[in-house]
Amino acid sequence: MLSLEEYRKLANDEIAAIPYPATPNGLYEPIAYTMDLGGKRLRPALVLMACEAMGGDVKKAVKPAVGLELFHNFTLLHDDVMDNADVRRGKPTVHRRWNDNTAILSGDAMLTMSSQYVAQVDPAVLPEIMRLFNQTAMEIYEGQQYDMDFEVRNNVTLEEYIDMIRLKTSVLIGCACKMGALIAGASEANAQALYETGLYLGLAFQLQDDVLDVWGDEATFGKAIGGDIMNNKKTFLLIGAMQKAQGDDANELRRWINNEYALRSEKVPAVTALYERLGMREAADEAIKRYDDMAFDALSRVEMSDEAREAFVQLIKGLVDRKK
Amino acid sequence: MLSLEEYRKLANDEIAAIPYPATPNGLYEPIAYTMDLGGKRLRPALVLMACEAMGGDVKKAVKPAVGLELFHNFTLLHDDVMDNADVRRGKPTVHRRWNDNTAILSGDAMLTMSSQYVAQVDPAVLPEIMRLFNQTAMEIYEGQQYDMDFEVRNNVTLEEYIDMIRLKTSVLIGCACKMGALIAGASEANAQALYETGLYLGLAFQLQDDVLDVWGDEATFGKAIGGDIMNNKKTFLLIGAMQKAQGDDANELRRWINNEYALRSEKVPAVTALYERLGMREAADEAIKRYDDMAFDALSRVEMSDEAREAFVQLIKGLVDRKK
Repeated sequence: MLSLEEYRKLANDEIAAIPYPATPNGLYEPIAYTMDLGGKRLRPALVLMACEAMGGDVKKAVKPAVGLELFHNFTLLHDDVMDNADVRRGKPTVHRRWNDNTAILSGDAMLTMSSQYVAQVDPAVLPEIMRLFNQTAMEIYEGQQYDMDFEVRNNVTLEEYIDMIRLKTSVLIGCACKMGALIAGASEANAQALYETGLYLGLAFQLQDDVLDVWGDEATFGKAIGGDIMNNKKTFLLIGAMQKAQGDDANELRRWINNEYALRSEKVPAVTALYERLGMREAADEAIKRYDDMAFDALSRVEMSDEAREAFVQLIKGLVDRKK
Repeated sequence: MLSLEEYRKLANDEIAAIPYPATPNGLYEPIAYTMDLGGKRLRPALVLMACEAMGGDVKKAVKPAVGLELFHNFTLLHDDVMDNADVRRGKPTVHRRWNDNTAILSGDAMLTMSSQYVAQVDPAVLPEIMRLFNQTAMEIYEGQQYDMDFEVRNNVTLEEYIDMIRLKTSVLIGCACKMGALIAGASEANAQALYETGLYLGLAFQLQDDVLDVWGDEATFGKAIGGDIMNNKKTFLLIGAMQKAQGDDANELRRWINNEYALRSEKVPAVTALYERLGMREAADEAIKRYDDMAFDALSRVEMSDEAREAFVQLIKGLVDRKK
């Protein structure tokens, strides 16, 4: 087994070698720009790691791994248009640097490119790989739709929130693990157990994101703390707090949510204190621990070498204890 | 061989049976709305016809045929956002009836659905079918990008225009023909000759569209005549006229293009008269005839039964002589 860092490097080398046609420049330049923004490359690294863990040839998994990273970045590109976001990884988003039409069309092309890369597998596994990839994509659009629906709803439950992040974030992590396993020729049972490992890891990962946005260290996290609070983003913390808060706490939370002119320096510490008073940090940590355990449980059902299992154990521990 | 009408009915029956999930409604309702708007269903009919013409089982081509229609309608949905179009087939466009975000996300889902339908072929031909489909999709995005680039350029040549419509429109007609042939197990040479038949047919078809927009019969054409003229759309006619016009004609054409407040009742007849004076109708008819001949020439290279060949001959004649 290679290290996570080495899998990332394999993915990054292939991403750097994507042969963008020279024309029309207006179509391909924003795609190259997006892929050059960097990122954790977690999904392609997982495809490669899962492939090797199940006894496959990592070289056969590099193109589909990059396909998942293209897909992930396509969703970010279109989400940034829909959320009207200005900045992505410290740089202007595509629709800000160019315009909405460019972001729409280049995103469409990225989605098709992702399919081109994913399809570069042995013909024997292609039908199942395409089914997995397309099904995952549909679930991710459903998750994005629920996320947008939640913005205008005030009665979202924690159960609905978990189901939304399962669709929007976790299924792609599960898909990455299962895809690597399928490329390695793993049994359906092993591939499915690895899918569930990734799925629960993804849930823990996203909840950790909610926590880091509030209690993370700004320098390590890489973006301003409290962004979700300022945007009244319906995270695990806000939804839980809205359900738990009574009396004065409920009134205070409502006032901060409705105050469009609240100063960041006042709203973020106040809502953070409310979250802490209501025990939301513990509730989130418990939920993370629960999904973490479920990921380990699914992993225990995968037939693999001790070395491969240990690599996944370290990965899960590292991602959930991450500070950024 | 069935009739074109019967192939269309097969496609429409399958389209009516698309199983849209009930939730999230915001994602799937706009897709059902788009597919219910109707249309000529030319692309799926061509897949079915080409499959049967090459000795294949039409039933095996129905899902991928609907996949191409889903893809075509996805491009219209996103193009309508990019062009800020209000009406499609007499009804509000998705981004007008709902909003831009809905049109973007539902369009993305349609693109993935199209891939799900296209992939439902025998595993033996799946790799080549996916390559053809994805390659065609990339060319169509390139065509749309050139089309948008042309809007802000004043030196577009007829050659560039033909290349743009080849990418934006014709490759999908060629793809439909080739996909049907591949599903039928046709040889690469036959499939390629049928691709070229569709490609040249598509060029003739699009040029005919430019002509109908100016000289069509409003009742038969189904939309207002002169839309391209009012929008200064860089069609074969306008690009050719801009190149040919000298002296007073050139000045008059420029005046109409720059007059933002021109009345439809004055601009459309005046520019039409200019086109006629400059011989653009004859030039377009000649170009259509040329691509028509090239379609027949490519068809002559396909090894097929007399009955199948005759069906394609009638199709080409019917599409080019069409009034709508």
